[in-house]
Amino acid sequence: MQSFIPPKRTLMGPGPSDISPQVLQALSRPTIGHLDPLFIKMMDEVKELLKYAFQTKNEFTIAVSAPGSAGMETCFVNLVEEGEKVLVCRNGVFGERMRQNVERCGGTAIVIDDKWGEPVSLNKVEEALLQHADIKIVAFVHAETSTGVLSDAESISTLARQHGCLTIVDAVTSLGGVPLLVDKWQLDAVYSGSQKCLSCTPGLSPVTFSKRAVDKMKSRTKAVQSWFLDQSLVLSYWSGEGKRSYHHTAPVNSLYALHESLLMLKNEGLEAAWSRHAFYHQELKEGLESLGIQFMVDEAYRLPQLNAVYIPEGVSDVEVRSRLLNEYNLEIGAGLGDLAGKTWRIGLMGYAAKKENVALCLKALSDVL
Amino acid sequence: MQSFIPPKRTLMGPGPSDISPQVLQALSRPTIGHLDPLFIKMMDEVKELLKYAFQTKNEFTIAVSAPGSAGMETCFVNLVEEGEKVLVCRNGVFGERMRQNVERCGGTAIVIDDKWGEPVSLNKVEEALLQHADIKIVAFVHAETSTGVLSDAESISTLARQHGCLTIVDAVTSLGGVPLLVDKWQLDAVYSGSQKCLSCTPGLSPVTFSKRAVDKMKSRTKAVQSWFLDQSLVLSYWSGEGKRSYHHTAPVNSLYALHESLLMLKNEGLEAAWSRHAFYHQELKEGLESLGIQFMVDEAYRLPQLNAVYIPEGVSDVEVRSRLLNEYNLEIGAGLGDLAGKTWRIGLMGYAAKKENVALCLKALSDVL
Repeated sequence: MQSFIPPKRTLMGPGPSDISPQVLQALSRPTIGHLDPLFIKMMDEVKELLKYAFQTKNEFTIAVSAPGSAGMETCFVNLVEEGEKVLVCRNGVFGERMRQNVERCGGTAIVIDDKWGEPVSLNKVEEALLQHADIKIVAFVHAETSTGVLSDAESISTLARQHGCLTIVDAVTSLGGVPLLVDKWQLDAVYSGSQKCLSCTPGLSPVTFSKRAVDKMKSRTKAVQSWFLDQSLVLSYWSGEGKRSYHHTAPVNSLYALHESLLMLKNEGLEAAWSRHAFYHQELKEGLESLGIQFMVDEAYRLPQLNAVYIPEGVSDVEVRSRLLNEYNLEIGAGLGDLAGKTWRIGLMGYAAKKENVALCLKALSDVL
Repeated sequence: MQSFIPPKRTLMGPGPSDISPQVLQALSRPTIGHLDPLFIKMMDEVKELLKYAFQTKNEFTIAVSAPGSAGMETCFVNLVEEGEKVLVCRNGVFGERMRQNVERCGGTAIVIDDKWGEPVSLNKVEEALLQHADIKIVAFVHAETSTGVLSDAESISTLARQHGCLTIVDAVTSLGGVPLLVDKWQLDAVYSGSQKCLSCTPGLSPVTFSKRAVDKMKSRTKAVQSWFLDQSLVLSYWSGEGKRSYHHTAPVNSLYALHESLLMLKNEGLEAAWSRHAFYHQELKEGLESLGIQFMVDEAYRLPQLNAVYIPEGVSDVEVRSRLLNEYNLEIGAGLGDLAGKTWRIGLMGYAAKKENVALCLKALSDVL
């Protein structure tokens, strides 16, 4: 067996996205202790940078030391108590995963379904909340990675608050790519992933909790079922005040990389990053359409950073993706779940949202098709 | 805010340990997709290399995409069912954490205590198993990171099997540093961490499950409470056969680093690595004793890779560790739990078990004291 030397791919799938050499370089800086005063200071900076990315003043804003799926579970296990009703809005793979999380916490999931490729219906949310007065939490996916659909987080949040509910929001693919205004929209528990529009390596999950969410955690009657994800334990590890209590060994180098990628986002500016995603999406869209490729998702709620398109008739999904990968070192994503074999997902996330990527993707697709 | 440029520390605490430049370089190689055929092939190699490190043929041998504490939880949530009795052997911080895990799974922990600094008492294990015929699992820490004590895993495992019990074994600090023979000792669920004697960056947790453990998982009556750690879902992601099903996005770059560190271990050879730890422990020990520093743990069950020593009387714990860190860029560990302020923990783990580290540590301590 030999050292593993990966090729240099262009990553235009649903994540991991392309990563700046600057972030990879940060990743490989010398490891220091996770309780080293310099590292603790860096963790404090990561918190500040995450608050900027999430557009929040929430004190409880950290990175879970595990991938986005663990970030999702963190929100559910800390907020859902046994027997509680949670409204789950399902319009793709990740809404379904939310339902499973609710049930594994001993909660009851009230599910409303929207077609894959459509956003969450506000009418259905409202109806469900009217029908079940005892719903405590509304859970939904802001940007569905499986379909490329953006839902109206602000309006769902307004409805939830009108009915006295908290919100749990999957912002895995939205953070850094499209507007996500945690405080303005009054979202309560929001999780994301490092490997999408933040263009960091996979493995970390930024989360933020509002005061209302923290209050609900504090009023729990039973300990959180997960020791590792119990935020009452984790918070004292991430807290800047006084003595930091040991919880687990932080993924030191991964946090170097997250720090660097968040700094790049801050230096570019969130609005500029959103515009850049929109701009290259437009360029990609025009090119794809001129190749006769159709978008699955209506323009009104299409994600610029994740372009779900129909595989043209008579074209072999696997063969095209293999040729792109093997001949052009270009990765695009397959369809997920019910959409496997029917769609491709072309990502323009973070550092991947740039002219040369769009050009390569269009030329390679036009050659191969 | 600026890029974070850490100093180069010498890491002789309880982990993270010193990391080879070769591993840091692997970490920063270009990210490829987590479903890229080349990456999947590398995951298969990681499995093979982990089997070597664990000395097992267990097919279910993978790295959990999160730190050792999540590896611990993985073993408990998958194996312990509601209402089941688990014998927890507690002789330090991590035994106590096991107890908390059992309770959060809805199990009942039968706890036997040994003094911190002493190994698990075989007599107490046997007595407890005789007294509670319905114990299903025996959980213990092979190498207690909080005290530097090695327990007799083989004998505890024998007792457990005599009473029809499975074993859950914390091998966070033992893997790669002292003999750990999973198959020979017939251990059932064993977890470790990447950042100790494997000298990889923190954030991954190698685990291995015996056939008996897998059978118990398969016969569960209720779904595992954690979606993220449910090994029935994870296994199909790590399985080499046929179509790999998506579970979460693997921490791609961290796995490059683990692959490299395991390859280094394989190339050195396990026996050679064990001998190296023992050899430099001896050198450190003689030097410390000549400085008048006393070991906390009896030689018979002392870990070579984690040296718990008493802080000499009249010496300020914090001041000495700060001076070592700030003047010598040398990290040694503080005492944990009840031992805070009373002991230091000097690690000689993995890549840190070498002559220059021992020399630096002895000279720096002798200067500062």
